[in-house]
Amino acid sequence: MPKVIVLGAGMVGSTIARDLIDEDGYQVALADISADNLFNTERKFPGKITTIEADLSDPSQVKRIIEPYDIVLGALASRLGLATLRAVIEAGKPYCDISFMPEDALELDDLAKTNGVTAVVDCGVAPGLSHMMAGYGAAQLDEPQSLEIYVGGLPQERIWPFEYKAGFAPTDVVEEYTRPTRLIEHGKMVMRPALSEPELINLPHVGTVEAFNTDGLRSLVKTLDIPFMKEKTLRYPGHCELMRIFRDSGFFSQEEITCGSVKVRPLDVFSTIVFPQWQYHDGETDLTVMRVVITGLKDGNRIRYTWDLYDQYDPGQRITSMSRTTAFPCALVARLLADKRYNEPGVHPPEHLGADAELFDYVLEGMTSRAVQCKFQEKLLTD
Amino acid sequence: MPKVIVLGAGMVGSTIARDLIDEDGYQVALADISADNLFNTERKFPGKITTIEADLSDPSQVKRIIEPYDIVLGALASRLGLATLRAVIEAGKPYCDISFMPEDALELDDLAKTNGVTAVVDCGVAPGLSHMMAGYGAAQLDEPQSLEIYVGGLPQERIWPFEYKAGFAPTDVVEEYTRPTRLIEHGKMVMRPALSEPELINLPHVGTVEAFNTDGLRSLVKTLDIPFMKEKTLRYPGHCELMRIFRDSGFFSQEEITCGSVKVRPLDVFSTIVFPQWQYHDGETDLTVMRVVITGLKDGNRIRYTWDLYDQYDPGQRITSMSRTTAFPCALVARLLADKRYNEPGVHPPEHLGADAELFDYVLEGMTSRAVQCKFQEKLLTD
Repeated sequence: MPKVIVLGAGMVGSTIARDLIDEDGYQVALADISADNLFNTERKFPGKITTIEADLSDPSQVKRIIEPYDIVLGALASRLGLATLRAVIEAGKPYCDISFMPEDALELDDLAKTNGVTAVVDCGVAPGLSHMMAGYGAAQLDEPQSLEIYVGGLPQERIWPFEYKAGFAPTDVVEEYTRPTRLIEHGKMVMRPALSEPELINLPHVGTVEAFNTDGLRSLVKTLDIPFMKEKTLRYPGHCELMRIFRDSGFFSQEEITCGSVKVRPLDVFSTIVFPQWQYHDGETDLTVMRVVITGLKDGNRIRYTWDLYDQYDPGQRITSMSRTTAFPCALVARLLADKRYNEPGVHPPEHLGADAELFDYVLEGMTSRAVQCKFQEKLLTD
Repeated sequence: MPKVIVLGAGMVGSTIARDLIDEDGYQVALADISADNLFNTERKFPGKITTIEADLSDPSQVKRIIEPYDIVLGALASRLGLATLRAVIEAGKPYCDISFMPEDALELDDLAKTNGVTAVVDCGVAPGLSHMMAGYGAAQLDEPQSLEIYVGGLPQERIWPFEYKAGFAPTDVVEEYTRPTRLIEHGKMVMRPALSEPELINLPHVGTVEAFNTDGLRSLVKTLDIPFMKEKTLRYPGHCELMRIFRDSGFFSQEEITCGSVKVRPLDVFSTIVFPQWQYHDGETDLTVMRVVITGLKDGNRIRYTWDLYDQYDPGQRITSMSRTTAFPCALVARLLADKRYNEPGVHPPEHLGADAELFDYVLEGMTSRAVQCKFQEKLLTD
């Protein structure tokens, strides 16, 4: 009878928890600093979930509350990611996390090995499922040659001028539009500006979207030996150009400027004016679209694997697609940890897990059974 | 021996003065609050120009310094326009002005008539030459039916993303992008938002540009009885859309917003960030492009008059095209006033003067002899 605790009762954390309470025999707890967040989940599942009010920015509190549980799942803000990971490893608990921490989680790999702890980080949709696909593809091929990840969370309704709403913290979106991008070309790391190399591509269900460079490869630049790798964000056409205009004319700057008698950061002004326009309001629905393409040699042939993922807002449960696609990989890996089907000590990015075809199939089937469309195509290339 | 004084030694005022000192027997004075501005002009024409340092925002000073002169020309900031006009009328001097005052100058028409003063206002390029063309066309036709004015001052070099530099105060540009537009349709005044109804048109020398509604008809809505009249500003394609985005997402707002601990007006932030990017720097050249089209019946036929004006930066004299095309109509009318060829008492918009074919031809020939290209076409319409 696995006892699971989810740290963080935001949209994603509560979706993870709600997924797990459906599993026979699971005892599920949800912890957050906000009593409101906890109550919102609890009242939907009376008697089925334990809620714990705690300040999770304090690692000693994290250790205290996770003590009675077998499995720990992290859905906290990215700035709490690393400290929480360390606390869970020190407490000796299996862990799966979607916090997207800015630091390199693999720094704690040795500690995890020493403590015999299995921790999977970056385990949402992208990074997450994307990286499992990459790991799976790289393991299947004799010689992987290229990897491309295209991913975006988008509003169903396209409203001028931004045609965008932020499914996660809008400051992280701007950060994504600013931070230089790491790509692998000819086996070497190269840097490109964010928002560079925009290209139009047609994808099922959403039609024509625009893909541009963002720094989303993360662990893949170290873990996979593929000579060409890139990650691009998807938006409706035109958004990228508009963001370049705002960025390059100075509105994303964090250096104070003087306006009359006051000093102000342009990004703060941009945020105050634009972020409210990027907010999803009641009844506004989102979608998630992702394409992962990996090519390479297998038995002397050139092969291409393509996954096309598409998901929509769940109107019945009122869960955004971004929360669904982020929460489900984590909730599925939680079961693999609970069943000890994945128990290799260390801090693992999702591509490690994806390299095991059986585990990868389990996660992919789990996504499909949760109504996330995931079409796979294998093609023999004859050029 | 006419004695002429120019009020304001900015780019336009000094260009008016320099045009007039070339005229045989003219005594030219230039007044400004800035000794630097005055010196800049004086050192180019030593001994040929009188300079007067004075605070022209004070109407009593204006009256005092213009006293010895026969003709007064106004090239001051728009906010000083009305008070200066009143001072000159009270002093009983013929006047020609390009200040583009926000108030209705015709309110002082009665005062000018009482004092026997001839004053021509809005006498630059548009309003100015544009309105003379309109007045000329309306007078030539038995029944004028439509008037369209397209005009823009543009940088020669198109630089992403704005492809624009401001030839006059950038605050006035934003004001032009904000203030609702008056048009005449079916003989009635209708209002449209600024930046509305963008359309691409091809013009000689500049190629494809974009025309959109701005509130530039000014006096014409009252003085001419033409059932369809509109004025549109010309920019390189895309600028209009970008300005709509900034305006409609809130960056032109003058209502304070709270950013952290400070309150700030979005327009002040936009100005601080973007106006420096709209500034002409040394060696950057501009152009002026204008098309005026008037159609109507004459002797039972439908006729269309079209003027296409094109002008470029003068690299020899280092004078912007915007200054050239604004200063020359005023400098030419100054001669008409000095010769008493135009001496009808009252405050006159340029269309009054344009209605006199002889005076209009004089101004148009004067523009041409100053290398402003001005192509006229008359066409019989047979639809």
